[in-house]
Amino acid sequence: MTCMQDDTPRAVRLAARRRTLTGPTAGRAGGFVQGNLVVLPADAASDFLRFCYLNPKPCPVIAVAERGDHRVPSLGDDIDLRTDLPCYRVWRDGEISEDLPDISHLWRDDLVGFVLGCSFSFEEALTAEGIPLKHVAAGTNVSMYRTNIPCRSAGPFAGPLVVSMRPLTAANAIRAIQITSRFPAVHGAPVHLGRPEEIGIRDLSRPDYGDPVDVAANEIPVFWACGVTPQAAIAAAKIPFAITHAPGCMLVTDVPNTRLAITSRDSGSSSTP
Amino acid sequence: MTCMQDDTPRAVRLAARRRTLTGPTAGRAGGFVQGNLVVLPADAASDFLRFCYLNPKPCPVIAVAERGDHRVPSLGDDIDLRTDLPCYRVWRDGEISEDLPDISHLWRDDLVGFVLGCSFSFEEALTAEGIPLKHVAAGTNVSMYRTNIPCRSAGPFAGPLVVSMRPLTAANAIRAIQITSRFPAVHGAPVHLGRPEEIGIRDLSRPDYGDPVDVAANEIPVFWACGVTPQAAIAAAKIPFAITHAPGCMLVTDVPNTRLAITSRDSGSSSTP
Repeated sequence: MTCMQDDTPRAVRLAARRRTLTGPTAGRAGGFVQGNLVVLPADAASDFLRFCYLNPKPCPVIAVAERGDHRVPSLGDDIDLRTDLPCYRVWRDGEISEDLPDISHLWRDDLVGFVLGCSFSFEEALTAEGIPLKHVAAGTNVSMYRTNIPCRSAGPFAGPLVVSMRPLTAANAIRAIQITSRFPAVHGAPVHLGRPEEIGIRDLSRPDYGDPVDVAANEIPVFWACGVTPQAAIAAAKIPFAITHAPGCMLVTDVPNTRLAITSRDSGSSSTP
Repeated sequence: MTCMQDDTPRAVRLAARRRTLTGPTAGRAGGFVQGNLVVLPADAASDFLRFCYLNPKPCPVIAVAERGDHRVPSLGDDIDLRTDLPCYRVWRDGEISEDLPDISHLWRDDLVGFVLGCSFSFEEALTAEGIPLKHVAAGTNVSMYRTNIPCRSAGPFAGPLVVSMRPLTAANAIRAIQITSRFPAVHGAPVHLGRPEEIGIRDLSRPDYGDPVDVAANEIPVFWACGVTPQAAIAAAKIPFAITHAPGCMLVTDVPNTRLAITSRDSGSSSTP
């Protein structure tokens, strides 16, 4: 990743606004929450909010904008949802229509913006505590899989839980469960570990999204609920019109990752043996 | 287990003191901390305390009595370490010498009593959150194993980490890690899960202590540091004289288990789809 001299959240947003940044935000504005974006017409927004409420692990809502309002002051004074992401994905009738660097011309008075927590926050916490993440080291996308675990449906929104997988040693898996439990607003604790077939994943080496990663003999695959879940639900619902972030191109907020932690670090548990 | 009409901690201690209770305390005085007992001559006590400090997961100290004092007021006003456990084990030169219901005649002015946290507290928390424990259902002792993980030594005290193993489904293993992380004073989070051979356990069906338990195809063996570890260290150190509780015959204290929890329950993590 390239770091600009000014890598504050606001600087990243301005770069996106000016279209000097049109690619992924991974590694940018370290320490600050990045969010998944979902924009829906008001007539679908109510069901979608209920879907998020029923499925908080894959769909952790960290902000909902007012109807028709492109601002999200709770996440940053100057945020403009129409311009501040490096790239957007437009969906029509549940199909990907186009990827765009700006959606100002598509904005409407009936649109409602949702910002959902993203695993970048908990990955930063894991890295800070010395837990290596192989996809980060390799510079690839995390492996993601559709499971046989159904989300709880709300109106037209339904579909499988999508999970991301990180291979970890047993000791790191235990620490990772402790650490991510402190971050329910960014998917929280894992939903599964060990045998992938128990959640309907037949071949770990063939993820449904993202890139494959090797699981070594001394590693356990650990599965977290993933923010691709709501996109899969939008596709399944065949919503006539929706906008999301393009993969990896998140909304960078002014909220520190640490503010999402519900408790302080567990000092007792690190004193192994 | 049999529940007396009066099953308060004090009633259980009085029954032990009067020798009407001479067997295990599992299931008695629900909700209250039970402790492992270690009594050592003062010339060994300092090294043992350092051993506990260096190995807090297997040896979580919850009280140390004054030299020569058989009372532990921090755990209960009337506690008498000489009489209030249903059965004691006397060690001479690192070997088991005898099991006795009362050690009043062996008490000396130079003895120091240590009370260490015990897994009964976290097992109660697991059961309260709906996580089934197979050895409890079967009425057997938990399976325990000597590992290839060395404890950090202190003076003559050294030896392997001894672990207890509970088979759990993946979802329950994740919850169990969260729950036991809140209880560092009673062994805290697991030290390992998954492959037993990684920590030197060759055959799960042949525990070094306790009874075997079946691990089903959809279960993961989860390993916690175990209070047998300090007894193994006392044996290895060949301490001329020591007294511990006899297996399962704990000191029942007036401290509620919940007082050992360092944080409240993680409300975010239970909201799985």
